Formats: sequence, C-alpha cells, structure tokens
Amino acid sequence: MKELKIKLPASSANLGPAFDAAALALDLALRIRARKAERFSIVARGRDSEICGQIENHLILSTYQEVLRTEKKNAPPLALAIENEFPIGKGFGSSAAARLAGIALAVHFGNLRWDSPRIIYEASIREHHPDNAAACWMGGVTAARMARPPARMADVARILPRGSWPLMLAVPDVSLSTEKARAVLPEQYSRGDAVANIQNAMLLLAALFQGNHGLLQSSLEDRMHQPYRARLCPLLPALEGLSSRDGVLGVALSGAGPSVLVFLDPTRSLARTQAKIEARVRERRLKAELIQTRIARRGAAASFFEER
Amino acid sequence: MKELKIKLPASSANLGPAFDAAALALDLALRIRARKAERFSIVARGRDSEICGQIENHLILSTYQEVLRTEKKNAPPLALAIENEFPIGKGFGSSAAARLAGIALAVHFGNLRWDSPRIIYEASIREHHPDNAAACWMGGVTAARMARPPARMADVARILPRGSWPLMLAVPDVSLSTEKARAVLPEQYSRGDAVANIQNAMLLLAALFQGNHGLLQSSLEDRMHQPYRARLCPLLPALEGLSSRDGVLGVALSGAGPSVLVFLDPTRSLARTQAKIEARVRERRLKAELIQTRIARRGAAASFFEER
Repeated sequence: MKELKIKLPASSANLGPAFDAAALALDLALRIRARKAERFSIVARGRDSEICGQIENHLILSTYQEVLRTEKKNAPPLALAIENEFPIGKGFGSSAAARLAGIALAVHFGNLRWDSPRIIYEASIREHHPDNAAACWMGGVTAARMARPPARMADVARILPRGSWPLMLAVPDVSLSTEKARAVLPEQYSRGDAVANIQNAMLLLAALFQGNHGLLQSSLEDRMHQPYRARLCPLLPALEGLSSRDGVLGVALSGAGPSVLVFLDPTRSLARTQAKIEARVRERRLKAELIQTRIARRGAAASFFEER
Repeated sequence: MKELKIKLPASSANLGPAFDAAALALDLALRIRARKAERFSIVARGRDSEICGQIENHLILSTYQEVLRTEKKNAPPLALAIENEFPIGKGFGSSAAARLAGIALAVHFGNLRWDSPRIIYEASIREHHPDNAAACWMGGVTAARMARPPARMADVARILPRGSWPLMLAVPDVSLSTEKARAVLPEQYSRGDAVANIQNAMLLLAALFQGNHGLLQSSLEDRMHQPYRARLCPLLPALEGLSSRDGVLGVALSGAGPSVLVFLDPTRSLARTQAKIEARVRERRLKAELIQTRIARRGAAASFFEER
C-alpha cells in the first residue's frame, strides 16, 4: 500500500450572507504524509504543532478509525507527518479539514470506493454543515447543501472567481467554539431578513463569478448571523467600519468567528491597506494577527486523486 | 422628438428558492411604438388586447404621467401602438413591464437623465420588489436588490446562462393578484428553512451559470413561498410530480403564480415532454395553456438605448 500525501486548504465559510451555504478555500494548507506502521505515531511541524501532534483524541486519526469501524474494515496503524499552516479553532475550517483528512486516509488505506460527493457528505454529516468541507475538498468558492435522503452525498457547485481577490485574515488570539457561536442565533427570522440574505448571497456569487468588485462591496451585508455574533467577535464591528477609501472591499466573519475575512481592493497598495487595518485594530484596543492570503484554486481532492 | 420603439420581455420571478431575489427574461414581448400627438390614444393588438387598449387607468400611461409630474415636467400626449404577447396578470411580470414602459416613455419624452440602475429602481419601488423589473430591463437571468438608501438605484447582477434551457409555461385561465398570493405567506421562517433557500438559490445560480442541468434539478426546492401558495396555484403540485423521466428538470411557481415555469430537459423530445405535461394537467382535472419558450438574452434596455 502506497503512502498517501494530501494537502488540505484552510477555508472560510458563510461569507456574510451565504450563511451555512458557501465558503472559499484559502491559500494556507494542512499537509499530511501517511504510511502504514507498527503503531500510530504523529510528527507535527508548523503552526499549532502541539495540537496537531497530540495523539489522544486526534480528530484526523479518530475519524480515520471511526469511518473504517463503521465500514466494518480494519484500520491499520499509521505514521503521520503533519505540516500545518492553519490557525486552529479560529474559524478557518480546521475541523472540516481534519475530518476530510481522516476520511481520505480511510478511503486510501481501507480501499473504500467513495467519490468526492460522498467524501464531502461524510465529512459534512460529522460537521453538521457542508460548507467548509466542500470548499476544502473542491477548492475555489463553493456553494453546498446535503442532498435529499436517501442519497448519501452533498450537492456542490464549485466556481473559480474571475480576476484577483486578495484577502486578509484578522485572527484574534482567543478561540471561539462553534457551539457557543451558534447558541446566540435566533431560531426564527423575519421574511425581510431571510429575503435580504437570499438576495445578497446570489449577488455575492455573481460578483465573484464575474469579477465585479463593486458588487461584492454592496452584497456582503448579512442579517442572519453576524449581527448576533458581533459581541462575541469584536474584530467584526471594528473592521466593518473600513471602506473602499481604506482599500477594503468588505468584511465578513470567517465561519462562526472569531476571525474576520477581509476582501481587499486589488488596485490599491496592500501594504497601505494592511497599515489601515492594523491602525483600526489598535484604535479599538484589540489584538489580531494579520495574514495576507488569497483564494486557493485547488482543493484537497486534486492532491488526493493525483497522489494515489 | 423622435418616436420611441421599445420591446419589453415577459419575466418569471422567484425561480423557486430565489424568492424576491431573482428572475429570468422570457422570449415573449410587449412591443410599444410611441409618438407625440394631439391627445392620448392607444391601438393594441395581440394577446389580452382589450386590457392593453383600455385607456383609463392604463398602467403604462399612468406611470408615464406620474413620473413626469413627480419630476416637475410636462407630459406631452402620446399615441401608442402596442403589440402584446404577454399573459397579463398570470405571473409573468406584466405590471413590471408596463411600469418600465411608462418610465422609458417618461425618460425619452421628458429628457430625464436616468441610467439603467435608476430606471430599474424607479420601477421597483412602484412594484415593491426589483426582481421582475431587473430581468425585464436587463434580459437573461438577474439577481437584484434595492441599494441601501440614500442611493436611488437597484443593485443588479445579470448573467447569461450557459447552454440551452428550453422552458414551458403552464398558464391557467384564472388570474391571481400578487396581494392575495402574498397574504398567505408567514411573517417568520425557521433558521433551517431560510438556510435551505440560501443554499438552493446559490446552487441554482451556479447551475444556470455553468449549464449544469442535474444541479438545477436538485436546487429548485423552495421552503419560503411555494408550500404556502400551492393551494392557490393547483398547477404547481400537479406538475411538481413530473421528473427527468418525463423530460422535466424541475418546476417553479412563476412569480406569485398562478402559472408554473417548467424547465425542460433539452436532450429529450419537446413534443413528448409537452404531451406528458398535458396528460398530467388533464389527470388532475385542471386546465392550462402551454407556451413553449426560452430565456431571452436581450432586455428592454438593449432596445431602448439602441432605438433612441
């Protein structure tokens, strides 16, 4: 059995109005090399390596073992080498990437005949939503939903945005659990709020598709989750005040927060824009690491199917 | 002052999940020729010509006069020649087209300097929603919302779908007022229903963009208006039972109903599909005129700006 090399991109879900519906892959990766071994072992390098290297309750390995147990297959022990660029637990799809990695290991070392819609589905039911898993697996920008039962697959549309979409991630040093961020959401929404999100989500997708920076700017407004999460994620209201004058097209909470995804105007100096963002964070007496990145075109599927 | 010739396409709004957000232009037109005259007069030919020719409370002329009164301009009397292919009051954007026609006449004969976003906005505030007005004016498939005040414009994305999308309209002989169809809707929606519509609306747009007929099929599900309007629009539940076996990709209520928009599989015999639709309508003891059509690429704006 050949060793498996896989590269899984970070992802940013929700994108403002596209709540629980869309995400984009980021140019920051979790790289894994796995081979059969006598016993389970992990060597981890890179960001948050103490989390990535801790073998108990390791989300990659526990998913690998659980999937093969469910499929009534043996799970041979693996030696993993992990190299990580993800901020973990900060709203960049680290758990979706870890589950996908575990599923990919199970498919590879357990010889499962799962295609991409099935792999995304299996990650999504464990995540309770398909958005990060779809973007991480497919790359680019994805919209996704679970297919109607009994189909065991996700319906996914992947688009490659037109033009240049530089991004800045603003990452606070505290984490926020998705459960906590979900507990502040209402159960019911007015017709007006739901319609505004449908309109904006469609305009947002068209803006990315067509490379229309002005349209993106006016379509990032969300009424379903960001207004309720703002007090848990103080970077969001801080950075929402930035505008095209500052080189910022718009901002959105990354996933359930606490980090913020900033769409940058590609026609402006990125250094100047970064300085504006830094100044705004300081003014509000907040702290954030800023990471400049962009949309990753390739998802984990590309590396998985090529490397096998 | 040169005479004005304008051709306005019918439109179908909502498209299932894209409630109050998206619409497409249809290859059925309202054609108007207008010139200055001694007094107002109308000659109407074509479908529903008795409504189109009735000069009292004529929506085109009353909009024309009201717009110029609001703009503090004179409204010279006009002689109109109308040739109509629209089913009026059946969910194909006849009132949006009439208002746009009146606004176009006002812009032309009153020398207003309004661009397309403003013209769509002016029709939309009178219609209380921008979807039909955007599709009628721009053509293709549109997503739209009103821009944030104080801007007096609509934010519109227009896309031209990839590939072939033959359509069938199923038109009952009774009309249904938008007010009545709106009165049956709830004021509040669950988070799950709102999220399902956001997901499906984005997948639907991607399906049209990418020419993905299979994805369209799975993305037309709506939870915000069709379930509540089905009893006012019995053609909808009747035709929802048709499937790809019958040559039908999916169905949606056209606007607020009572008509139904049917997406046809372009790889199947349209005559055979039409026979299946006819049989289903008969089985349910309903009546419907069936009109085969397709998405119109050109909207009224093209004829307006070219002809002037």
